[in-house]
Amino acid sequence: MVNKIDSRTLRDMSYGLYILTSHDKDYLNGQIINSIIQVTSSPVRLAATINKKNLTHELISKSKVFAVSTLDNSTPKSFFQLFGFMSGRDVDKLAKVRHKEGISGCPVILENALSAIEASVFKEVDLGTHTVFIGNVIASEVFGKGRSLTYRYYQEALNGRISENAPTYIPA
Amino acid sequence: MVNKIDSRTLRDMSYGLYILTSHDKDYLNGQIINSIIQVTSSPVRLAATINKKNLTHELISKSKVFAVSTLDNSTPKSFFQLFGFMSGRDVDKLAKVRHKEGISGCPVILENALSAIEASVFKEVDLGTHTVFIGNVIASEVFGKGRSLTYRYYQEALNGRISENAPTYIPA
Repeated sequence: MVNKIDSRTLRDMSYGLYILTSHDKDYLNGQIINSIIQVTSSPVRLAATINKKNLTHELISKSKVFAVSTLDNSTPKSFFQLFGFMSGRDVDKLAKVRHKEGISGCPVILENALSAIEASVFKEVDLGTHTVFIGNVIASEVFGKGRSLTYRYYQEALNGRISENAPTYIPA
Repeated sequence: MVNKIDSRTLRDMSYGLYILTSHDKDYLNGQIINSIIQVTSSPVRLAATINKKNLTHELISKSKVFAVSTLDNSTPKSFFQLFGFMSGRDVDKLAKVRHKEGISGCPVILENALSAIEASVFKEVDLGTHTVFIGNVIASEVFGKGRSLTYRYYQEALNGRISENAPTYIPA
């Protein structure tokens, strides 16, 4: 039924790039995410798609909350290395960056972040390899003025790689 | 429970801009959409969030298929007027633009489009005002080389307005 998909059609699509965090009591973690969008405006709700292999998936499944930080264009490549290509099972990522505790209990990143939104999950959609977590926005905060980093900028200007766990991963 | 949301945090998020089409036999329609993303890579699946008030919502609910075209940066403002601010209940939008019939039966737009993807819906998530349609990709085609239009470019360079039906609509 499925014809061969021309990967250019998928690469043509546009995304932002964010850090998504969650927690299990005192256990904190976060990861890079591009697959998060606003899905309704009244009330304001976000949908975040996460790979089941990721520790952050495990934490959100338990705590039912997440925080998302929009990254600034000037975010250094080392940040993506830490949050995109290391697992919280091996490294305490949050020990390496400035953050504060949000009202959801999730760590809210204070480095390279323009703003942050916290959400409480009310629906989970199982898509096999990934889950779509849909949450009501419960808090929001602006930290700085700047330009949001896009997925395209990350790939073109920073020559950034894509994790195999990303919903938008395209095999070579 | 919900604190006041700082709308800047929502405006900081990034999106592409696309035409999404569907059909009910010979009845064709399409609309502008920014809230569409890839949600899994194996198999390749897309999630499109549509307002229940829109005719395209009615068509996808019946036909269970949709096509999405990624727009080129050079798309003229008149195109957004037609697909973003007119209803297919009043105007035959597809009569005004070049298109062809895709393998899903959906019209595939041939003007201002870099590429197109067709999908077959297998899951619908009801979010009150909007539905998230999740579809398996069944076809894809590349038409031209160019730069994908972003939601930000539409707002900043084209001074484009946002429809009240968009999931990312923010009241003034």
